[in-house]
Amino acid sequence: MNRLELFRLIEKKHSLLCIGLDSDIKKIPLHLLDHEDPVFEFNKQIIDATHEHAVAYKPNMAFYEANGSKGWISLEKTMKYLEQFKNEVFTIADAKRGDIGNTSEQYARAFLEVMDFDAITVAPYMGTDSVTPFMKFKDKWVILLALTSNEGAKDFQTLQPHRSKFFQKIGLKKKKGQPLFEIVIRKSFEWGSNNNLMFVVGATRARSLTNIRKIIPYHFLLIPGVGAQGGSLAQVAKYGLNKQCGLLVNSSRNIIFASGKEDFATRAAEEAYNMQKQMKALLSKYHIC
Amino acid sequence: MNRLELFRLIEKKHSLLCIGLDSDIKKIPLHLLDHEDPVFEFNKQIIDATHEHAVAYKPNMAFYEANGSKGWISLEKTMKYLEQFKNEVFTIADAKRGDIGNTSEQYARAFLEVMDFDAITVAPYMGTDSVTPFMKFKDKWVILLALTSNEGAKDFQTLQPHRSKFFQKIGLKKKKGQPLFEIVIRKSFEWGSNNNLMFVVGATRARSLTNIRKIIPYHFLLIPGVGAQGGSLAQVAKYGLNKQCGLLVNSSRNIIFASGKEDFATRAAEEAYNMQKQMKALLSKYHIC
Repeated sequence: MNRLELFRLIEKKHSLLCIGLDSDIKKIPLHLLDHEDPVFEFNKQIIDATHEHAVAYKPNMAFYEANGSKGWISLEKTMKYLEQFKNEVFTIADAKRGDIGNTSEQYARAFLEVMDFDAITVAPYMGTDSVTPFMKFKDKWVILLALTSNEGAKDFQTLQPHRSKFFQKIGLKKKKGQPLFEIVIRKSFEWGSNNNLMFVVGATRARSLTNIRKIIPYHFLLIPGVGAQGGSLAQVAKYGLNKQCGLLVNSSRNIIFASGKEDFATRAAEEAYNMQKQMKALLSKYHIC
Repeated sequence: MNRLELFRLIEKKHSLLCIGLDSDIKKIPLHLLDHEDPVFEFNKQIIDATHEHAVAYKPNMAFYEANGSKGWISLEKTMKYLEQFKNEVFTIADAKRGDIGNTSEQYARAFLEVMDFDAITVAPYMGTDSVTPFMKFKDKWVILLALTSNEGAKDFQTLQPHRSKFFQKIGLKKKKGQPLFEIVIRKSFEWGSNNNLMFVVGATRARSLTNIRKIIPYHFLLIPGVGAQGGSLAQVAKYGLNKQCGLLVNSSRNIIFASGKEDFATRAAEEAYNMQKQMKALLSKYHIC
């Protein structure tokens, strides 16, 4: 899915909601455990109940890998099931991969080709050749970790590197004062554009969005951390929206585990609709659509 | 496996060889494709042929994930097969995971509990709460990315952050001049010790080992990049060995794809034995064992 198609989807649904399929087998309703593949059954019912309100789904690989090969089968079935909504939802493999070139190539194949996700989250620590193999697929996206929503984000992401040669190279006079996450964003301009590259910026860092939008006014951002992690949708919209929306806001636990009982899908739909209504109001308030 | 047990294994085998099971289905010998699970059959024959010379095996997740759930089944079978060598080889999931706390917990469960690897490689970008969930398992290890072997390592890992508060906090007078990878290493002292934490340092950065050994004289290091990537075993040993060896040197393609024909296992054994002989000589030269 390309950028314009994604924006058209947002316009159509008046939503920028991404639903995180963190489908922990230990948290799904007990009555589903009788099914042959409880995690897939859970995902299927969540998707059926919420797809009108959501523009994206983001399965979180960890929750599938914790079930071993069975987990991967649940994931494959989920992607297969999502095929019927091919042009109706954007799919993100929340995998946070990144390795030396020949290995990143394999990860790229796994997620963008074999499983045909629209996008994958990628960790930047290993640099250029760990990221670029993910960028060789038409209308597919790398979503690069920039400033994450968790407490540990301040350990390295906000450190301010000092390396005059680097700053000269990218044409900056400043010799210090750029946090690592901004350097990651600037470096990534060598790898891709706002047509194949997005960034993860935690909702818990909403005020940082003002600065980030100065560097990347047109890129899409994937915003986790609204809800369970404490981020505010209104703040994220205020500081992060651009003319083509430019935001996908993720919610996982608040929606998919709104109820742990038989009414889980109905309750998920209610929570998703509730968020979509807030999003519609914000999209209107900021004259996006 | 704890640190002493790992060292005893190195002493016993006179080897610090880790064999990377980057078992690319597109590169394994054609005659294996008739088997029900060609990748497992390949691994099994490689393990049978090389386990006398190697102290560790390191399946690289990307090559299994590229085959989807079938790949995970090959991986599970490989780990099951390795159970018979439980105290004879150390097993590393080369997964380079790392995410917010509740997600890292799931990855930790997947690799250290369900699949029972001895260790997992972890990416540090997301900080403390992305790493510590992997450290809650007795006699299991986190192998943290520090200075990797690839070209992209210089993009961020060698940047020199500048943040006086941070340096004060960790008791350093210096306000600049510490590359990011050294800061990652120092920060990790808050997370674990040389009993549950190792670091990835690329063989292509052998000269950096002198400085790294000043910071972490006693930790084990996992050294990729000897062979296909151009690193030198002699240099790595010279600058990296400590009294309890402190090194695991990985070789993947040079061993497992030494031949692409029916003699692949014999050729892999020859290459592994060849490396083990060089390692034995170096362990003797530096009076390790």
